[in-house]
Amino acid sequence: MVTKQWLTEDEREAWVALTGLLIKLPTALDAAMAKAAGLTYFEYLVLAMLAEEGDGRLRMSILAERTNGSLSRLSHVVRRLEKQDLVRREGAPEDRRATNAILTGSGRHLVEQAAPAHARYVRDIVIDGTSASDLSSLARVGQGILDRLEESAG
Amino acid sequence: MVTKQWLTEDEREAWVALTGLLIKLPTALDAAMAKAAGLTYFEYLVLAMLAEEGDGRLRMSILAERTNGSLSRLSHVVRRLEKQDLVRREGAPEDRRATNAILTGSGRHLVEQAAPAHARYVRDIVIDGTSASDLSSLARVGQGILDRLEESAG
Repeated sequence: MVTKQWLTEDEREAWVALTGLLIKLPTALDAAMAKAAGLTYFEYLVLAMLAEEGDGRLRMSILAERTNGSLSRLSHVVRRLEKQDLVRREGAPEDRRATNAILTGSGRHLVEQAAPAHARYVRDIVIDGTSASDLSSLARVGQGILDRLEESAG
Repeated sequence: MVTKQWLTEDEREAWVALTGLLIKLPTALDAAMAKAAGLTYFEYLVLAMLAEEGDGRLRMSILAERTNGSLSRLSHVVRRLEKQDLVRREGAPEDRRATNAILTGSGRHLVEQAAPAHARYVRDIVIDGTSASDLSSLARVGQGILDRLEESAG
């Protein structure tokens, strides 16, 4: 067998569960967010990260880090959000090579309107059914994988 | 703040790590698999699940479950793999409404050639840096989330 030959049964169970999440959860989050706000989950994440800034303003490079997206993917999504008047972009006054993304009034309105349904969904599907120790394990495992991805890319 | 108001700091850490995985790991798996075999990770998963059957043959409906994909997504991918002569489809002899996907010789060759590099990558990024107890926690958390997605969809 192609996978059993290189994973123990326990390792395989963890890997199968993780790949199941990778395939199913994004689709489910996108569907829930489309219903709540007509956005993809990644679009919501971009608006939410901006909304967490008092002035709704972040460097594109920092916004890319906060959303775990590549700068090219983020630029593509921000252009889409700009067309819907949810975000605007302007050159950073303090650095002419840098661009800021700025949440518009309707962007803030939309993300605040979508947040409660999103919160309930995440609690129902992910958080409330998971023990505190499993949540801290998930944080540790996830961060470790992200760190190793970073190293292997760098 | 949009997320802090509805998650405790510990819950937020777990959720941020999980969403980071959802966004970054699939891209990394696709890139590694493109390099190893010119396939997306989901295409590899389809071939690998077929290769785990002695006769390389599975009902499309069962293959969809094994790969956590929807039947429509699977059909789309299998059509692509068919064009590359890696998989073929035929009506199930025992049920004329059902279709079987069958791994071709070149499909088996490709998946067996790609498997070692894939195994090393998964070990390096996910398995080897994670403790046994965190792996069993990951399996438990992941399966729980998948079960709740199933219920909420059904």
